[in-house]
Amino acid sequence: MAKFLTNRDDNYAQWYNDLVIKADMAENSVVRGCMVIKPYGYAIWEKIQAELDKMFKATGHVNAYFPLFIPKSFFSKEAKHVEGFAKECAVVTHYRLKKDEKGEGVIVDPEAKLEEELVVRPTSETIIWNSYKNWIHSYRDLPILINQWANVVRWEMRTRLFLRTAEFLWQEGHTAHATREEAVEETERMINVYAEFAEKFMALPVVRGYKSENERFAGAIDTYAIEALMQDGKALQAGTSHFLGQNFAKAFDVQFTDKTGKLDYVWATSWGLSTRMIGALIMAHSDNHGLVLPPKLAPIQVVIIPIYKNRNEAEDISKVALRLKDGLEKKGISVKYDDRDNNKPGWKFADYELKGVPVRIAIGPRDLENNTVEIARRDTLIKETIPQASIYDHVPGLLEDIQNNIFNKASEFLKQNTYRVDKWEEFVDIIENRGGFVMAHWDGTTETEEKIKNETKATIGCIPFDSPREDGKCIYTGKPSKRRVLFARSY
Amino acid sequence: MAKFLTNRDDNYAQWYNDLVIKADMAENSVVRGCMVIKPYGYAIWEKIQAELDKMFKATGHVNAYFPLFIPKSFFSKEAKHVEGFAKECAVVTHYRLKKDEKGEGVIVDPEAKLEEELVVRPTSETIIWNSYKNWIHSYRDLPILINQWANVVRWEMRTRLFLRTAEFLWQEGHTAHATREEAVEETERMINVYAEFAEKFMALPVVRGYKSENERFAGAIDTYAIEALMQDGKALQAGTSHFLGQNFAKAFDVQFTDKTGKLDYVWATSWGLSTRMIGALIMAHSDNHGLVLPPKLAPIQVVIIPIYKNRNEAEDISKVALRLKDGLEKKGISVKYDDRDNNKPGWKFADYELKGVPVRIAIGPRDLENNTVEIARRDTLIKETIPQASIYDHVPGLLEDIQNNIFNKASEFLKQNTYRVDKWEEFVDIIENRGGFVMAHWDGTTETEEKIKNETKATIGCIPFDSPREDGKCIYTGKPSKRRVLFARSY
Repeated sequence: MAKFLTNRDDNYAQWYNDLVIKADMAENSVVRGCMVIKPYGYAIWEKIQAELDKMFKATGHVNAYFPLFIPKSFFSKEAKHVEGFAKECAVVTHYRLKKDEKGEGVIVDPEAKLEEELVVRPTSETIIWNSYKNWIHSYRDLPILINQWANVVRWEMRTRLFLRTAEFLWQEGHTAHATREEAVEETERMINVYAEFAEKFMALPVVRGYKSENERFAGAIDTYAIEALMQDGKALQAGTSHFLGQNFAKAFDVQFTDKTGKLDYVWATSWGLSTRMIGALIMAHSDNHGLVLPPKLAPIQVVIIPIYKNRNEAEDISKVALRLKDGLEKKGISVKYDDRDNNKPGWKFADYELKGVPVRIAIGPRDLENNTVEIARRDTLIKETIPQASIYDHVPGLLEDIQNNIFNKASEFLKQNTYRVDKWEEFVDIIENRGGFVMAHWDGTTETEEKIKNETKATIGCIPFDSPREDGKCIYTGKPSKRRVLFARSY
Repeated sequence: MAKFLTNRDDNYAQWYNDLVIKADMAENSVVRGCMVIKPYGYAIWEKIQAELDKMFKATGHVNAYFPLFIPKSFFSKEAKHVEGFAKECAVVTHYRLKKDEKGEGVIVDPEAKLEEELVVRPTSETIIWNSYKNWIHSYRDLPILINQWANVVRWEMRTRLFLRTAEFLWQEGHTAHATREEAVEETERMINVYAEFAEKFMALPVVRGYKSENERFAGAIDTYAIEALMQDGKALQAGTSHFLGQNFAKAFDVQFTDKTGKLDYVWATSWGLSTRMIGALIMAHSDNHGLVLPPKLAPIQVVIIPIYKNRNEAEDISKVALRLKDGLEKKGISVKYDDRDNNKPGWKFADYELKGVPVRIAIGPRDLENNTVEIARRDTLIKETIPQASIYDHVPGLLEDIQNNIFNKASEFLKQNTYRVDKWEEFVDIIENRGGFVMAHWDGTTETEEKIKNETKATIGCIPFDSPREDGKCIYTGKPSKRRVLFARSY
């Protein structure tokens, strides 16, 4: 166990925070609630961006960029949206600083007050639909399939690195369609893209489903989400896709002429995934030794560490190591050769375990003699010695194996920690003592949902798409219910 | 000539603005000075990002992300920096909106006033060096070679799409070094990276040089810049790299222990390139038909347009077109097949000329019979008919040829419009009537520089690295000078 990490089983929250800091992923900045994403953490975000961007483009989307600032009045245009987003926002009121005549520093110039305050975007539906108004006239202008990579700000009171920060990075898709059916189809397509990304790249099994009315995006007719289960038994919403109906088109008066010449409001979707996913990635797979990164998102997939006693040995090992590095890189694998001589091999071993590098290759004098290397995998910590000649065939398969193993382990954990519950006492016991996903019947009312939340802190993660029709009684009120929904305490 | 474009020779500024709008690159947003970068314009930025990012990584840099907000007091810490940047800034003073009890909308909650105002970053030296303070203790922590892709805000009073906007996108590199020499070397390395990028990818010849003291970055010891010449004879600064000395390390108290155990302040550089480059790209190469894009940055390199009279012809042409598209894509070329039937071929031809697609392939019934295609290049507008079978060999070479031709044309223009001038009357005449780069002697004082600027609007673009030592007399004062500097009116 890494000595400087809090034990995961003693204090999960502290373990998580230690890990983010010690693995050099991110840190809190001097600005309240804003983090600095350090190079190692940002490299994971770059990998996430690259893969998602490919998937977005493969499904017909293009990128664009809309302003950071939104006029305050825009928030009042959509009735529900204003309640959800026009609250904890960063508000720009002035556009100039000037020298403080009385002191050393600078002060806000009272003469430079904006006529209308600007809000730093917490999400961009309003400013984007205000633009779409000028872009859309006829059905020929549709669909519009735009994504934006951007920073957004929500003035959160309690923040945690990656999981909840005042400023965060994300992508937000905003699409416009001629028909309701097409928009619903897009909403589904994108939640499936997120689910596929989570499972294939993040090795994170997810449950796809509808949000309850209470948990929907402010301004949406329907919100789809993917829910993942963390190792402490809490749920984490890992991506959402919203069917917005004609709400924003009506709010910003975006109408189009359809094929029959009739005027109608445009149908909309929006969908987003953020740097929060890095928090999910860390919490889902890591252990007391540090991060466990799925090879497909690991900034460094293989690290090579030389073990030597003198300069001669070091030089001989270097030659082999650089040859192996080169050969692996030709296979498209990212490799770091760490021959810094200010740290001992044992220190390096622990450091790359902490950083979750999937495969470690060590080469010592004995290996030179035998033409072997020692190869260790981060997920199971199992080591073996293999011939140098076989490494180019071995490593690609090993990386795939690690990726699958991490996913399977998380899937097994999800399965083991999903409960079908029909009695209130059992519901409370599991939520309070074990955690996990509790599949239970619910009478469909926001009132009951709120009462359950108040008594147990459990919320409805989602109503899974694949939850079968089944007659039952609400876990709380005993009223009739047609399907089970997913309850959990949640991040 | 595209009818909807203002003639370039009649009104260059209006031609530029028309072009940006009509080619669907960007538009002004409802927020003063902020633009919307539309998908076609953003696709060029994505190409710029991809190529620059590769070059940054090849020179040892990594990406990270620092907060959007900077505490107001940070700006006062570096004496020169405060004068340059703590002026026209967007200032966040509140963190909450609330319902207007008297009306329909929302108002800023007076209770939610920040203790210290936050400035939306105009550049990030201060917040980054405040972080580096905690990262750097010993020479072993150096160098730090970090780049950030981000949005920044400078409250410009007069804005123009891409060239000068309140919010813009850019990258900013911020590096920390143990020695002055290393930092100077880095400053030079990065201006050379920018120059190579401009010439190789943007097909834009540039002059590399030092900025005069007056034009330096606020807080820099030395600023290097690349200057490009636009078709109207004005200069455009296309990228800058700053040697910051120990100024920011002193302002934020960032010291390190060197190899000998001595404590010293850290040496710094910063360097940036922004979406302004898209404006340069447009202004340098385009003509009265529309954009002329260098193939290496063109979102679509080849467009294929079918010409048919009936459905049967359309189907037969489609088969050939899709086969050609597929074959070209396998060569790594981006191809669009435009078989929309709501616009005639002539309209499409004009539209893709407007959008600067480097190569257009047209296939009609006659081509089907003869196994040929008509191929047209955007830069020269020359058309030829070639056998279908030769297309996979022909197009890659043609794209290279177009790239080179655009660069050579711009180089020739730069050469033709660079003047060695020794008389004040000639200086004034060229600046006022012809435009271009004027290489003239200067006495080295800010006073003279200001006077020349006031009388002619010409500034010192840079003191070119390759301007040879040459005894002469200042063009304005007649005082002795050791080398010529580059004067121009500038964007």
